[in-house]
Amino acid sequence: MKEKHPKDTFIVMSELVLPNDTNTLGNLMGGRLMHWMDIAAAIAAQKHCNCPVVTASVDNVSFANPIKLGNLLTIEAKLTRSFNTSMEVFLRVWGEDLSAQYKYLSNEAYLTFVALDPNGRPRKVPELIPETEEEKKFYDGALRRRQLRLVLGGKMKTEDAGELRALFVKE
Amino acid sequence: MKEKHPKDTFIVMSELVLPNDTNTLGNLMGGRLMHWMDIAAAIAAQKHCNCPVVTASVDNVSFANPIKLGNLLTIEAKLTRSFNTSMEVFLRVWGEDLSAQYKYLSNEAYLTFVALDPNGRPRKVPELIPETEEEKKFYDGALRRRQLRLVLGGKMKTEDAGELRALFVKE
Amino acid sequence: MKEKHPKDTFIVMSELVLPNDTNTLGNLMGGRLMHWMDIAAAIAAQKHCNCPVVTASVDNVSFANPIKLGNLLTIEAKLTRSFNTSMEVFLRVWGEDLSAQYKYLSNEAYLTFVALDPNGRPRKVPELIPETEEEKKFYDGALRRRQLRLVLGGKMKTEDAGELRALFVKE
Amino acid sequence: MKEKHPKDTFIVMSELVLPNDTNTLGNLMGGRLMHWMDIAAAIAAQKHCNCPVVTASVDNVSFANPIKLGNLLTIEAKLTRSFNTSMEVFLRVWGEDLSAQYKYLSNEAYLTFVALDPNGRPRKVPELIPETEEEKKFYDGALRRRQLRLVLGGKMKTEDAGELRALFVKE
Amino acid sequence: MKEKHPKDTFIVMSELVLPNDTNTLGNLMGGRLMHWMDIAAAIAAQKHCNCPVVTASVDNVSFANPIKLGNLLTIEAKLTRSFNTSMEVFLRVWGEDLSAQYKYLSNEAYLTFVALDPNGRPRKVPELIPETEEEKKFYDGALRRRQLRLVLGGKMKTEDAGELRALFVKE
Amino acid sequence: MKEKHPKDTFIVMSELVLPNDTNTLGNLMGGRLMHWMDIAAAIAAQKHCNCPVVTASVDNVSFANPIKLGNLLTIEAKLTRSFNTSMEVFLRVWGEDLSAQYKYLSNEAYLTFVALDPNGRPRKVPELIPETEEEKKFYDGALRRRQLRLVLGGKMKTEDAGELRALFVKE
Repeated sequence: MKEKHPKDTFIVMSELVLPNDTNTLGNLMGGRLMHWMDIAAAIAAQKHCNCPVVTASVDNVSFANPIKLGNLLTIEAKLTRSFNTSMEVFLRVWGEDLSAQYKYLSNEAYLTFVALDPNGRPRKVPELIPETEEEKKFYDGALRRRQLRLVLGGKMKTEDAGELRALFVKE
Repeated sequence: MKEKHPKDTFIVMSELVLPNDTNTLGNLMGGRLMHWMDIAAAIAAQKHCNCPVVTASVDNVSFANPIKLGNLLTIEAKLTRSFNTSMEVFLRVWGEDLSAQYKYLSNEAYLTFVALDPNGRPRKVPELIPETEEEKKFYDGALRRRQLRLVLGGKMKTEDAGELRALFVKE
Repeated sequence: MKEKHPKDTFIVMSELVLPNDTNTLGNLMGGRLMHWMDIAAAIAAQKHCNCPVVTASVDNVSFANPIKLGNLLTIEAKLTRSFNTSMEVFLRVWGEDLSAQYKYLSNEAYLTFVALDPNGRPRKVPELIPETEEEKKFYDGALRRRQLRLVLGGKMKTEDAGELRALFVKE
Repeated sequence: MKEKHPKDTFIVMSELVLPNDTNTLGNLMGGRLMHWMDIAAAIAAQKHCNCPVVTASVDNVSFANPIKLGNLLTIEAKLTRSFNTSMEVFLRVWGEDLSAQYKYLSNEAYLTFVALDPNGRPRKVPELIPETEEEKKFYDGALRRRQLRLVLGGKMKTEDAGELRALFVKE
Repeated sequence: MKEKHPKDTFIVMSELVLPNDTNTLGNLMGGRLMHWMDIAAAIAAQKHCNCPVVTASVDNVSFANPIKLGNLLTIEAKLTRSFNTSMEVFLRVWGEDLSAQYKYLSNEAYLTFVALDPNGRPRKVPELIPETEEEKKFYDGALRRRQLRLVLGGKMKTEDAGELRALFVKE
Repeated sequence: MKEKHPKDTFIVMSELVLPNDTNTLGNLMGGRLMHWMDIAAAIAAQKHCNCPVVTASVDNVSFANPIKLGNLLTIEAKLTRSFNTSMEVFLRVWGEDLSAQYKYLSNEAYLTFVALDPNGRPRKVPELIPETEEEKKFYDGALRRRQLRLVLGGKMKTEDAGELRALFVKE
């Protein structure tokens, strides 16, 4: 199983926000956006493992700027790190008013996927080797975010979450 | 503005998982599920504030059990706490194979919404008074989850997140 | 095959009326509503028979109050009676303007489903035992509605529809 | 307001049954079919009144033959009679397996629509003059079906439903 | 394999233009219209070959008049000619404002389909015999349009496209 | 109105082919693909003119390789030339089986859009200045394709289509 790099997993998704994607205030609904984010991130994960994947978790997502009807939505997704059978994907989401020529960051998110074999059981994924400085930063942070997920999911005690704990405790 | 109770905001959403909701393995796609969760939670928030709302954030969500094509999906949503202009909603999601009579918890999640006035600006929401023991527990935890959101969003320093910090540091 | 009760089949479906669900006057389209009613009723029927079902008939439906864009739609469904291989489901549909805090009955309906075996042929369903006074009233009326369906479908002569005939003829 | 004829309102709708229109047995879902029937009937009604319409009622519908995935669905709709502000539309629905060259009647139905003025209030519709023998039969039956709707909707007493009563009582 | 006639393949599709079918100016989106045109034309092709088909090409389409939200869309499709394993379908698309009683031609188009056997490989289709004068004109033009497709697709040299060449060169 | 370059209009759209996008053979339907192509091309055109656009025409499209269920669809769009109020966009569409790591060209197409002012009337667009060799080739070809569109649409005589005529006649 050969090594792979973050840039091999990079994908861009562009969508126009149409009437049915919006709420009665003319803003893109949060759930519709999460639907597209999930598809974009799944593509990045599949580009890495070359097999079907299933969404395992979505980290905290904050929606800073509502995306308006008729605007362009751009999602960029790239793998940050692979674990044994799972992969973390980082997403950046922009809105853009093409008439006003105004582009704004909507939100950033981390989604985790599990690779599946043909029987639907988790399977090993290739190692991901970060190359740029930014990729290395994302790679390192992935461990801390993973501990937070496990703590929040009740699968790890706070005292075992060394990386995460270091944020709160200066020892 | 009169006080309100969690039970006034409780809603149930039932959906059948249809072919277009699933990936090629016949499992409900994570993004489609998040779309429904967002709508269910928005209804609970609107029942509290009686005004339009916008999704502000989605806390960590872990998908434990995939929900299969043809299964029944049930989402229960209830407000846990209201802050000045925002509201936290707790969701429980079940899958159910009606033929096999097997019901399973899929995941739990916290979504936060901001109430909007007719100009799309945040507006004050009524206070929420928990009544049962379980509601009080959710109410108390809401502060800690709020601090985690602010820390993760880079809007609060870890040393100011007293509630959250207490989980990691025994002083 | 064990007996079952109406309360075991009760389900609630909540939906927000979105732009694409409405006509150019901003009202929920009748056909879109019937689509949701069919899904809600099918879930109730499947909870009773624990097998796939197919819609056999929809009784007269009158739409009293149009449901507006942005309103909450609530459908409650419960089995009224099971026959040999078919089941009658009663539905109540409400609209609700959450901002104006105004809830209104939209319509009531009876849908009938046939239970299917894995080869798509009708199969026997469990008996339904009504418990409350209201459930008993629905149970008794089911026979009369069934005769009306058969008469309207040309499968029963009016003189054989004793229950139904009694409404028109005082003998 | 000039007189109009049933043939002026006749429309045909053709659809292919796609995966998302079907249940897990590969049959067109009843609710999806009713959605299309409502649109087809609304077009026929609009061709008569040349104004927006809203679905007022759907008469008993029986689904005789399930329509399969990949089959062609054909709906024919034609006005049968206009009343003061409402119109009754008759629909015939066929399924067709184009490979097997087998066409089958799926069901027949009557839908009623109310014509609306720009403020959403009922408005008068033109008179409909039947021409063929078949159209005259549908025209005459419309009165009896209207009484049945009113009786079933609790808006008319059985003793006042003369046309309908005649079916049950030979006086 | 028996001969067939254009009239055996004729189909009509009627659709109402709903909010989600339109862009922010309230006009039917070109891509949504092409989606419906493809389905209508595929039905006409399947009526001829009685087997699955796949879209092979779409000829130049010009959109003359935008179709507005709430308008009726009517597509008429009919086979013009069958080749060895492919079929050319001619479409006419109208918009209609039913309130204003104004009907307008939106566009005309030629789509080509290939007939498939159960393994997804091209299969022979029946011969199509034109009957009316108009059908014969469409039948004759089909050869010229086919050459244009091949030239534009880089599969035929302009000097071999005799029919097409005659339009430009008077020899 | 400042000059712009093709690279400013370049966009990438990525989509996963889901069950409802496919026909009964598991292939992406031609009409669904054209729907996505129209949206991708409209985005490229809007990036150039910074105003709403409407699809004016679609040139001949040939579908070489069917795109399969579960595959990744990638559409790249870039402006080739702007005329007075219209813009030509070139699209390349790929399918990709991420598990088999097999990527294939599906088709190429030219779509033309008209820029609209707030009243829905055509408005002038900025000039497009090609930079690379490939962009210059697309720019030059645009005139010939425009003549072909006009000839095919019956708006230009073959003898006036100099660029196009040169392909057939060696003078």
